[in-house]
Amino acid sequence: MGGFMVDLAGKHIPEGVLFDAISETPKDIPDAIQLLTPCTMGNGRLKVINLGRYALSLFDMHEGNGIRVFLDLQKLHAWPEIKTWLFQLKAKIDQDKLLEEIQRAGPDILGIQPIQVCAEHIGKPERRRIATCILCGEAYPAQDGGICRGCQGEGPYL
Amino acid sequence: MGGFMVDLAGKHIPEGVLFDAISETPKDIPDAIQLLTPCTMGNGRLKVINLGRYALSLFDMHEGNGIRVFLDLQKLHAWPEIKTWLFQLKAKIDQDKLLEEIQRAGPDILGIQPIQVCAEHIGKPERRRIATCILCGEAYPAQDGGICRGCQGEGPYL
Ligand SMILES: [Zn+2]
Ligand SMILES: [Zn+2]
Repeated sequence: MGGFMVDLAGKHIPEGVLFDAISETPKDIPDAIQLLTPCTMGNGRLKVINLGRYALSLFDMHEGNGIRVFLDLQKLHAWPEIKTWLFQLKAKIDQDKLLEEIQRAGPDILGIQPIQVCAEHIGKPERRRIATCILCGEAYPAQDGGICRGCQGEGPYL
Repeated sequence: MGGFMVDLAGKHIPEGVLFDAISETPKDIPDAIQLLTPCTMGNGRLKVINLGRYALSLFDMHEGNGIRVFLDLQKLHAWPEIKTWLFQLKAKIDQDKLLEEIQRAGPDILGIQPIQVCAEHIGKPERRRIATCILCGEAYPAQDGGICRGCQGEGPYL
């Protein structure tokens, strides 16, 4: 699914335009973007902004104008397995059936709209001052406060 | 760098243990984890919890016990390019020099500590109810509210 979505978005980016990417979910779509485009989390050209929607955008890295591709629920009626998967209607999805439907449906279930990314998300993040955390002793962005966010209790560890 | 970190953490996971991964930064490390382990964002086995620290954890997917690997600032004194890069001391990094230092330093600049991941981050996220947003018409996690978080103004678009 992610592959079809990246493909469709890519077709609407004019040749030669350098684009960045946003995925609105951490599921599947970031993998597809990283496989099929030069945008990765590592190089800063792919951002995951988790809005819980199965959608992505590709946009001009300087201007922020681009294309958003999403699953169009209006078009899902003919595709029961995809609908069951998207709405998590069953605990156990039949992966073979699902993949077969995704292959047959292809871009037919996708919607597309022009978008303008806001300034905050265009271009490289600026260089930030890095400090040493007095608690854990590791480097962290100074703007996070007197200690790092890990030591502020945001970490996933006991 | 990410590669050395994943490698070192992997050496401390007993053979046969199924592990999940957390990266504490979106930079570089998620790419390395996805290349070198079976954990990806897409399959839910890699989470990026951005704490602004250059660190990762691999841990038993059922028990949550595992290993955290971080950059040990105490060991960076001998490696000026790596220090300059980590603390973003220069706008323009000499990539060749940096990569050469990273290759020479290898795991020597890493620290390692045992961790226990808290219950919330162990195992698969449970199946959540998915609703249709009455504003954008797309599917979203019902727990986010009456409309999706994109429509609540959290989206990156104008
Ligand atoms: Zn800290
Ligand atoms: Zn919405």
